Amino acid sequence: MRKMEKVKFRSVPVRDLFLEMKNLSELMIDLAYSAALFNDLELAKDIMELENRVDTLDYLLEMTIMIAARDAHDAEALTGVSTAASAADKISDAAADIAAIVTQNIGVHPIVSEVFEKVEERLMQAKVSADSPIVGKRVGELDLAARMGVDIIAVRRDKDWIINPEKTEKIRSGDVLIARGVQSGIMEFKRLAEQKPQKGGN
Amino acid sequence: MRKMEKVKFRSVPVRDLFLEMKNLSELMIDLAYSAALFNDLELAKDIMELENRVDTLDYLLEMTIMIAARDAHDAEALTGVSTAASAADKISDAAADIAAIVTQNIGVHPIVSEVFEKVEERLMQAKVSADSPIVGKRVGELDLAARMGVDIIAVRRDKDWIINPEKTEKIRSGDVLIARGVQSGIMEFKRLAEQKPQKGGN
Repeated sequence: MRKMEKVKFRSVPVRDLFLEMKNLSELMIDLAYSAALFNDLELAKDIMELENRVDTLDYLLEMTIMIAARDAHDAEALTGVSTAASAADKISDAAADIAAIVTQNIGVHPIVSEVFEKVEERLMQAKVSADSPIVGKRVGELDLAARMGVDIIAVRRDKDWIINPEKTEKIRSGDVLIARGVQSGIMEFKRLAEQKPQKGGN
Repeated sequence: MRKMEKVKFRSVPVRDLFLEMKNLSELMIDLAYSAALFNDLELAKDIMELENRVDTLDYLLEMTIMIAARDAHDAEALTGVSTAASAADKISDAAADIAAIVTQNIGVHPIVSEVFEKVEERLMQAKVSADSPIVGKRVGELDLAARMGVDIIAVRRDKDWIINPEKTEKIRSGDVLIARGVQSGIMEFKRLAEQKPQKGGN
């Protein structure tokens, strides 16, 4: 796992911090169910990292609103933001708890699998190979929703997570994609993303 | 708010307890955003009650797996269930924290509204009037998804919550319906559900 840096204050709009916390925390719940269901250690570790990221965002948010609040009126108005952000943090903690079933090798009981399987749509994770036909394509160009009933919900690129990527976002070799969709569609998309070079005899 | 009864042990399959906890906790997050966004005190109070219900389910689940575990092997296997259930409980706590912004009159900051509003689909709550044309109809008969892009996700009937009601479930006068859908559809459905008697001059 990557080392976490010390949280230093940097000026980011509270709205951006909170929006990312909300989106990440909800994504993490989906990912955590998926990690538990497929006993996916890599994904479970990613969730642990995302949990750290949400913690960091929460620290930054708390620092920012502290600085923003000049008087009792400001403080009262900003308490709601702090409360909602803490709730997003709690949701991300819950996702990390579920992921810990995998990282700590607690074991997913059949009862848990059965309940998680009731989710109609499935999630998948794929690392884009250098030879994949989707390298260099924009998310919008792929038209995944219409073609295979698949939606890319997040991209991990080096140290960054791109949540709900824009249609104009270009896919790069080495990107880790998280997609949601119908089972047949996500299997097809995974093959496409992870495509190996076509050699004679392979 | 209705009084909570002391949690007494009753035999319910662990799978059923956990499934209800998972479904309720996820529904509660949606409801909490909705309560905060529309400053809906009734809905916020309902969320507080649902949080109590999830607590109760968690106690029952913990008691049930305690009784089920006869040896170290059982205990190890069941730890994953307990962990996943605790995570659902944590999610429901987070939903209650968001609802508390409304019940404790903390006030929803514009930043919070702005972020919650980014949810494309909307939620609504409607109490079915005695004169509504949907009284006595089965959920499936209403064909809401096709007709108005609306989905009934929960029904509160007296003390019970029916989560993801079956197509065969009959709607009764006094039911409180929670529906999700496009804004135009849920407004239309709310009018239908809350329809007042047609009198001359009204």
